[in-house]
Amino acid sequence: MPKRSFAMAKNKMHTSAHRHYEDDNEWGCGSWLEYTLVVVLSSVLLLGSLGLTLFWVIQYRGGFAWREDPKRQFNLHPVLMVAGFITFSGFSVLLYRICRCCRRIYVKLLHTVFHALAIPCVALGFLSVLDSHNLAQPPIPNFYSLHSWIGLVTMGLFAIQFVVGFFSFLILLCCEGATAGFRAALVPIHASFGLTTFVLAIAASVTGLTEKALFTLGDAYPEWREEGIVINALGISFIALAILVSFAVRSNNLKSDFKVTVVERM
Amino acid sequence: MPKRSFAMAKNKMHTSAHRHYEDDNEWGCGSWLEYTLVVVLSSVLLLGSLGLTLFWVIQYRGGFAWREDPKRQFNLHPVLMVAGFITFSGFSVLLYRICRCCRRIYVKLLHTVFHALAIPCVALGFLSVLDSHNLAQPPIPNFYSLHSWIGLVTMGLFAIQFVVGFFSFLILLCCEGATAGFRAALVPIHASFGLTTFVLAIAASVTGLTEKALFTLGDAYPEWREEGIVINALGISFIALAILVSFAVRSNNLKSDFKVTVVERM
Repeated sequence: MPKRSFAMAKNKMHTSAHRHYEDDNEWGCGSWLEYTLVVVLSSVLLLGSLGLTLFWVIQYRGGFAWREDPKRQFNLHPVLMVAGFITFSGFSVLLYRICRCCRRIYVKLLHTVFHALAIPCVALGFLSVLDSHNLAQPPIPNFYSLHSWIGLVTMGLFAIQFVVGFFSFLILLCCEGATAGFRAALVPIHASFGLTTFVLAIAASVTGLTEKALFTLGDAYPEWREEGIVINALGISFIALAILVSFAVRSNNLKSDFKVTVVERM
Repeated sequence: MPKRSFAMAKNKMHTSAHRHYEDDNEWGCGSWLEYTLVVVLSSVLLLGSLGLTLFWVIQYRGGFAWREDPKRQFNLHPVLMVAGFITFSGFSVLLYRICRCCRRIYVKLLHTVFHALAIPCVALGFLSVLDSHNLAQPPIPNFYSLHSWIGLVTMGLFAIQFVVGFFSFLILLCCEGATAGFRAALVPIHASFGLTTFVLAIAASVTGLTEKALFTLGDAYPEWREEGIVINALGISFIALAILVSFAVRSNNLKSDFKVTVVERM
């Protein structure tokens, strides 16, 4: 009965194509609640912290400028670094937990795109702080503080992760079979160093906020002015993000089904 | 043959008592290398960062005093907080990875003892900063900075973890059978929040170091003086500890055998 066997084959293909959805259905109510809570909270914090940084520099620090006004050029630094290292990178990391129904190759491409978007942010953010230091009268020295040391380590790790990730998980797909073992072994290392980079970025942010609060508010910082509270709230939201993103990445409940991961690992 | 069955039973007991060693023998060369590297590096960093903090305050900040000299009383704050939140807590967390051959109950008791030792350190460290602020002329306000906010959250989490851990994993042992399920469910939560507390303590440390560097070195901080470099090196060693301890706690290679954990879980 060729007609029946064709129908069976079609049905099998259909089942295979929708395996993700079926796996999803195996999730209990608790897992869905955890998923929704983590996705909503982390999205709110990732976008909210960028929004709060923008509000802070526009409302209290006079907004943005380029080289004609080095003091206001500095304001690009926190906004662009938060956008690149926290908002884009955070979403990029969380994609592996948020996108449960897409094919893994699309998630990987989106992961690359988000990280690629972070690169110009980080580069411009770095340039803006260098310019604002070097063009100031008198010039402000670079790379002497703990914040700058942590920031440099973070940028180095980010660059290594991007290059290694791009070549290993996308370029090496050209010889898929031969590199499968190598790529599979690299996944947990890439994930660990990715989370490390994110947490380092948070450490750089809280030290940077502390520096900025003392430099600009100085003796007014203990007076509980609005700007001081905004800066502290920003720091606390970064800390909450470090906890939440680490939790999301490590949670077994939020992991995609292992079999699907193995079948579709690129 | 009662003699033979007695010998068998004895042999079985012997096997059971030495199960850990046999499981250890299953470790490959790579696991042992990883174990040695993590234990040696983290011990060096945990003791080294406390030593460097002591060196810093004695060499550059005039050593210690009590209420008769609030400025030097402050110096107790970094040393005691690092001792309590980082050195004692760090070793306490790592015990579960370091002690592979002891019975689990001994590891738990040692874990409790190390955390109990951290309590007077943290309490005195907290008192010393409050005193040094309140007794200064004019008094310095409290709890306005990001560092103090992160520090308060860390102390709160530490206290909750200690109380919940003490009651759940030691006191509830009195009715071992009835509470086994509850205690087993609590283990990963306690472990996650424990690591979170440790990383929060590191975040508090790096913001505190940044504050202190700007308050005391001020315009001399960019001049690459010895004290500035010591402060930055201290911050970087804390960051390295955060990475290393997180790695050690999460590494599957360093975990005790799962069956042993389940059998001996208290």
